[in-house]
Amino acid sequence: MSDERPPLVPRLEGYDHDSVTARRRWVEERTGAALEHVGAYSIDSERMRGKIENPIGAVQVPVGVAGPLRVEGEHARGVFYVPLATTEGALVRSYERGMVALTRAGGVRVRLWMDENRVAPVFTLAGIAEAREFADWVLASFEAIRAEAESTTGHGRLLRLECHPLGREVIVDFRYSTGDAQGMNMVVKATDRACRWIMTQGRAPSYLIFSGFDSEKRAAGVLLAGGKGKKVTAGALLPAALVRAYFHTTPERFAELWRRTVLGHLQAGALGYNAHFANGLTALFIACGQDVANVANSAVGIMSFEVVEGGDLYASVTLPSLSVATVGGGTGLGTAAECLAMLGCAGEDAEGGAARLAEIAAATLLAGELSMGGALASGEFVAAHEAYGRNRPETASQATPGPETPDTAPQAAIDRDRAPQASIDQDTAPQASPAKETV
Amino acid sequence: MSDERPPLVPRLEGYDHDSVTARRRWVEERTGAALEHVGAYSIDSERMRGKIENPIGAVQVPVGVAGPLRVEGEHARGVFYVPLATTEGALVRSYERGMVALTRAGGVRVRLWMDENRVAPVFTLAGIAEAREFADWVLASFEAIRAEAESTTGHGRLLRLECHPLGREVIVDFRYSTGDAQGMNMVVKATDRACRWIMTQGRAPSYLIFSGFDSEKRAAGVLLAGGKGKKVTAGALLPAALVRAYFHTTPERFAELWRRTVLGHLQAGALGYNAHFANGLTALFIACGQDVANVANSAVGIMSFEVVEGGDLYASVTLPSLSVATVGGGTGLGTAAECLAMLGCAGEDAEGGAARLAEIAAATLLAGELSMGGALASGEFVAAHEAYGRNRPETASQATPGPETPDTAPQAAIDRDRAPQASIDQDTAPQASPAKETV
Amino acid sequence: MSDERPPLVPRLEGYDHDSVTARRRWVEERTGAALEHVGAYSIDSERMRGKIENPIGAVQVPVGVAGPLRVEGEHARGVFYVPLATTEGALVRSYERGMVALTRAGGVRVRLWMDENRVAPVFTLAGIAEAREFADWVLASFEAIRAEAESTTGHGRLLRLECHPLGREVIVDFRYSTGDAQGMNMVVKATDRACRWIMTQGRAPSYLIFSGFDSEKRAAGVLLAGGKGKKVTAGALLPAALVRAYFHTTPERFAELWRRTVLGHLQAGALGYNAHFANGLTALFIACGQDVANVANSAVGIMSFEVVEGGDLYASVTLPSLSVATVGGGTGLGTAAECLAMLGCAGEDAEGGAARLAEIAAATLLAGELSMGGALASGEFVAAHEAYGRNRPETASQATPGPETPDTAPQAAIDRDRAPQASIDQDTAPQASPAKETV
Amino acid sequence: MSDERPPLVPRLEGYDHDSVTARRRWVEERTGAALEHVGAYSIDSERMRGKIENPIGAVQVPVGVAGPLRVEGEHARGVFYVPLATTEGALVRSYERGMVALTRAGGVRVRLWMDENRVAPVFTLAGIAEAREFADWVLASFEAIRAEAESTTGHGRLLRLECHPLGREVIVDFRYSTGDAQGMNMVVKATDRACRWIMTQGRAPSYLIFSGFDSEKRAAGVLLAGGKGKKVTAGALLPAALVRAYFHTTPERFAELWRRTVLGHLQAGALGYNAHFANGLTALFIACGQDVANVANSAVGIMSFEVVEGGDLYASVTLPSLSVATVGGGTGLGTAAECLAMLGCAGEDAEGGAARLAEIAAATLLAGELSMGGALASGEFVAAHEAYGRNRPETASQATPGPETPDTAPQAAIDRDRAPQASIDQDTAPQASPAKETV
Repeated sequence: MSDERPPLVPRLEGYDHDSVTARRRWVEERTGAALEHVGAYSIDSERMRGKIENPIGAVQVPVGVAGPLRVEGEHARGVFYVPLATTEGALVRSYERGMVALTRAGGVRVRLWMDENRVAPVFTLAGIAEAREFADWVLASFEAIRAEAESTTGHGRLLRLECHPLGREVIVDFRYSTGDAQGMNMVVKATDRACRWIMTQGRAPSYLIFSGFDSEKRAAGVLLAGGKGKKVTAGALLPAALVRAYFHTTPERFAELWRRTVLGHLQAGALGYNAHFANGLTALFIACGQDVANVANSAVGIMSFEVVEGGDLYASVTLPSLSVATVGGGTGLGTAAECLAMLGCAGEDAEGGAARLAEIAAATLLAGELSMGGALASGEFVAAHEAYGRNRPETASQATPGPETPDTAPQAAIDRDRAPQASIDQDTAPQASPAKETV
Repeated sequence: MSDERPPLVPRLEGYDHDSVTARRRWVEERTGAALEHVGAYSIDSERMRGKIENPIGAVQVPVGVAGPLRVEGEHARGVFYVPLATTEGALVRSYERGMVALTRAGGVRVRLWMDENRVAPVFTLAGIAEAREFADWVLASFEAIRAEAESTTGHGRLLRLECHPLGREVIVDFRYSTGDAQGMNMVVKATDRACRWIMTQGRAPSYLIFSGFDSEKRAAGVLLAGGKGKKVTAGALLPAALVRAYFHTTPERFAELWRRTVLGHLQAGALGYNAHFANGLTALFIACGQDVANVANSAVGIMSFEVVEGGDLYASVTLPSLSVATVGGGTGLGTAAECLAMLGCAGEDAEGGAARLAEIAAATLLAGELSMGGALASGEFVAAHEAYGRNRPETASQATPGPETPDTAPQAAIDRDRAPQASIDQDTAPQASPAKETV
Repeated sequence: MSDERPPLVPRLEGYDHDSVTARRRWVEERTGAALEHVGAYSIDSERMRGKIENPIGAVQVPVGVAGPLRVEGEHARGVFYVPLATTEGALVRSYERGMVALTRAGGVRVRLWMDENRVAPVFTLAGIAEAREFADWVLASFEAIRAEAESTTGHGRLLRLECHPLGREVIVDFRYSTGDAQGMNMVVKATDRACRWIMTQGRAPSYLIFSGFDSEKRAAGVLLAGGKGKKVTAGALLPAALVRAYFHTTPERFAELWRRTVLGHLQAGALGYNAHFANGLTALFIACGQDVANVANSAVGIMSFEVVEGGDLYASVTLPSLSVATVGGGTGLGTAAECLAMLGCAGEDAEGGAARLAEIAAATLLAGELSMGGALASGEFVAAHEAYGRNRPETASQATPGPETPDTAPQAAIDRDRAPQASIDQDTAPQASPAKETV
Repeated sequence: MSDERPPLVPRLEGYDHDSVTARRRWVEERTGAALEHVGAYSIDSERMRGKIENPIGAVQVPVGVAGPLRVEGEHARGVFYVPLATTEGALVRSYERGMVALTRAGGVRVRLWMDENRVAPVFTLAGIAEAREFADWVLASFEAIRAEAESTTGHGRLLRLECHPLGREVIVDFRYSTGDAQGMNMVVKATDRACRWIMTQGRAPSYLIFSGFDSEKRAAGVLLAGGKGKKVTAGALLPAALVRAYFHTTPERFAELWRRTVLGHLQAGALGYNAHFANGLTALFIACGQDVANVANSAVGIMSFEVVEGGDLYASVTLPSLSVATVGGGTGLGTAAECLAMLGCAGEDAEGGAARLAEIAAATLLAGELSMGGALASGEFVAAHEAYGRNRPETASQATPGPETPDTAPQAAIDRDRAPQASIDQDTAPQASPAKETV
């Protein structure tokens, strides 16, 4: 696999099907790997231009659907069926369970608190005093800086500037509204223009476009205050009877689970607190063509379970720095556009799609926290993973189960999901016809 | 999109093609979205069993190849061409540039320091004194606990136990070797068995299988010491001339970039320090069927640039908690298995594949840090994203460029990648035939 | 206050009274400040040698006594009256209230889990591979390294070594037992000797005695696992009736307070969680001649309130990195030695004094958390500070209250402290004679 | 030391000398400790009222003087001699060395960026939507809230409000200007009033005065942005020749020390980065009657060493959350008032004293960072502590050194401090008369 002067990947410029194929063949030759499935993509390879270089095809990630999820936000209102791309067994079922319970409880309330993105260049001044003067000048020059920054973009708006001194350096935090785009490239370009203008004013000898303060695709404490994407809260009140029916436990045990695992997070020096935001975010992001690396910042957030007066459960998630988009990046590509369409965030529904997606994402994460929490609080977690997940015997998971070996566990679990209906509503048993089944 | 009693997703148990299609059709009907591409998967849907529930198909993520990357590890040795699945323009080109430079510099040295996974249940005792006694007993009972835990698995080995008191609670950190599997489900099952045995000994009134301390799929300070996956370091010495040729800047400017951006990370309260580990990890993980949510813990790490005696650049990455696998999860599915095969981590090469993949991943991230660092240090960052990335005019990126509008920028960039050869080696110009091009 | 060439502080070597006086006079002249009280010290100035340079006298910090505090540790057993040096009004009263309640509840259980101090030099190697080899060699050479290190000290023992790689650098964490001394200087000296020996073995080109990893006098996540001083837990079960009597609230409200304020800590990105460890630690450390800057690491810890079965309150503190000493530093000086003697940690009782002091400190902090928690949970916090603290009208706090203006609030508070006795025990009213008053 | 029903501390209300004595006698009897020095205080015990309860006297902490320190701030300008109360050998000498070097380099530039204190109560609402509405209402009601808050104080001014959602809870961050007072009690009282008014408006069912978000006396990431006390930067340019003369090393080695120890801090998960802010802060705070527990928040900050063009050293400290005061608390008591007077921050100079003290504190910390950095970079650290500190043989440190055993090391060190004068200025040797010695 090695030789003295290893060749470069062929300089094929084309994004046409043949170029992609030629490049893939070359890789197959060099590495000895057969790339049949990688070549079996359906999306138009020309659409990959600007999204990837040296394309050899596409990878396929299984996508499942979880729902119904009723969302009562300001941008997303209604019932959603959420696409989740994953290979972690039990994940979709787990989120589905939470969604069904939340929907049954009346849906998830969601609110968007902030919608910003930032770039934070750093300027180096001669000394402490000059740094102070520079910061004052920057803040006083907001309008001129804004004009420069916005001259590069039709969508981004510079909302405000914040200055953070570090000795003789000044980080200038540029905060933008970026519409439905994730917007990082847009705001980097705008900020760079503004910085160059500042240079022309002779106000600082040099700058660096990234100070590291922006915390794009990184976990950092500063994210807890927001400013990197959407700041969203989602919550729901779950009656004790519903908790028992869907999660086989009590609000008190949810609260106790929260207490004990918060202690563990504190001991671990965790940033924020949540059970598995990263799971739901990743699965949703892959499905919907998001920049998946943004999970690193988006997963920093705080979840809460508490028993309220009357003994019911209030559950919430707070996502201060959620990066989602419905235009740009991978959002327009084949499967991504289709998955966004499932959520009403594409095509004709695209306007305001990012805010809608943010609200759906927050509600989805709440479902995941509840379901994981329920599994742990009831002691069913290990058993559930036995039934669905990677713990299943390899023979069973890899073979096609015949009628002699019915995969009964999932069935039982689905039935559990349906059971609440009976136990709460005294309804008749769920009908056989899938399309007629309701929560 | 909403109605009074929203229906459940149909309870179709099958993973056969027809069941998947029926479920997809139902979703199309419910949501109004056309899911043509989602249905255009080539992988065997039966193989999705145990990896996902409610499957409706697969999403496609473009995959490109970056390389050559020479790795000098203990598990991975040789030249690799790395599959990266992404829709972030410029990402593959950026990693490629770093890889070429590193290969040209003699390759990346990599070492694996620790290879563990952990589950950290918490036990609640009657009080402080009982907690202390319990912890003593646990540690003294290691052999018995190990026997119980290992009785559930043919691959996992319990290496050691650590106890962390929290008042009257004791977190018991179970540390396992999990072979080539990510192993979370394996070690959860083993740990649960051990905990149940501890219960039978009457040593604690209750336990919770997850304390939160394990930091699976979360960013936490405790990850910096390792224990969640592989702990790997990768580094390379880059001669100043090579730095200039490939990155158009100097080792001193790399070091200065590091200094200034570390300050920004400190100001942000970041965990660890790196430019964009999450980018490379995500792209590699999606391509290779990893559990992508593990990026949340894997991206916690530290990067360093420094000028060494003689004026050259030493660059390194330290990844304390890198979660990778070559068996289990999504690793066996269609495109994932193919991408792993590109790296010699699948099929007949599978034995020890996870360690190999960890070393390749670390080398890949080093390439990404160097390339991003070079772009920032040389001031080319914004320009590069203009040429390749999302900043490109939508018309150009969405239309098929004709011969009148040659996409010259990438060509120039590739030529830049090739230029060093000339500038350093005084070689003749790179040949036209891709297969013969060498670093 | 400024002149062109400001003079140095006079080079008076002596620690005798006259030298101190002369230096103080010089300062008075230079600064125009009268330093009468600074000169009114009673401790032997010769004893200051090795503890301070350029002495001009001593500052006086008011010291109060809080107690009784019953401690049921392994090193400290019995009832203590704790000296607290502070100028924060209400602090002593607040800790006293917690102590009385804890004592009344049967005392505080305390356990010492770890007793170590560390120095963590960093070695730079040629590259990644060499760093790995070096770490292996270090661990294999433990006995020789230990012999070198311990050759410099009669008290310190090197317990173990841990290696943490950072690219081509290796932090070697030296863990020592330091007896009753804080021991930082002792272990720095020992470690430096060991490092010099490693140099002689030609194993590394250079080292730096402090890598920063040791987190001495700094807040860092790594402290949560211990290794910097004593790791101690303290806890107590408080019956609901007692909670009501002393804190005028319920265990449920304590638990709710914990829940809500943990959320605030998470939002703030706090390290650990506690109400005000720093208050009690600082007051105790100043009184007892500790190195007060060690509060920075000692205050990193976790507090917990929870309602247990039966509705009572379990409260605990976990202090992973508590730095205390009973020999060396300021512990032998005048008032410090006297305050340590109050706690049975000086003179003939000195042996094992540091462990005893650690247990008393942990119990003291628990008292402070309970009292602050009670004040917040009951809504009395602001009122209490009105009565005792800095919020008192300046006229009252600065004037000598005559018999016409009895300072009744504290009286009432003391009576509240006494009241529980009656309410719980149905005892007769507390006697007038202080010496006979009991909890 | 224990008995069945341990007595309460006697309920002596008086702060007169006799009451203090009686209480001290009682403690002596109960504990067996002789408290002679504790009783040898000179400050007026009546002045302790409102500052401490159950007083038994005062502890004495040796205080030394370090200087000259030239400060070029906006509030503090001139040369200062700084009182440092400590028992850590070598500390005063170390800070002195840094101060002399800084003064010789032209002094320390200091700037105050923010001067605020905060209290952050938390309100619980019915749900997510109500929380959002509440926050909007709070921000819209700023003027009314401000009027309520400021009605309780003549000095505090409410500057602004910030709302942070946590699910259905809203933390309202009240930011105040508190003049020369530390102001915590003042702003708690004002905020409580405002919260009660909010209750009367029927806008929230309940609140808790402390959410934990304020990070008073705790280390938390949120402090890095300021808002808890003074945000100050201090820096100086030190010519290479001066660095060599005073610190026996080079700017390059300072920069390299910074690089390596930053890595160690990152590995430790430290908040911010500095060598030993806590040392200088603690010594200054004890001397000047500050609330020493505020070191926990004040020590969170960032230090930087860098080589600038021309090869000189630029050193800076950034202190985002420095809590200092010149009125209230312990600032008026005997020795504290005298030490503040040394700095021109008391009596007639009191107006604006807190800002002045903040600037002097920042300059002092810079001196300490430089001196510690120099000792490490030059490899003299261990030797210096041998000469001055706790490592000195106990026999020497506890006995009065006779003329046969001259304590020559400090003399040499002082001479080192003076040497630069010669080496840089080619001056004649320092004169014998202290008062005439200049930098």
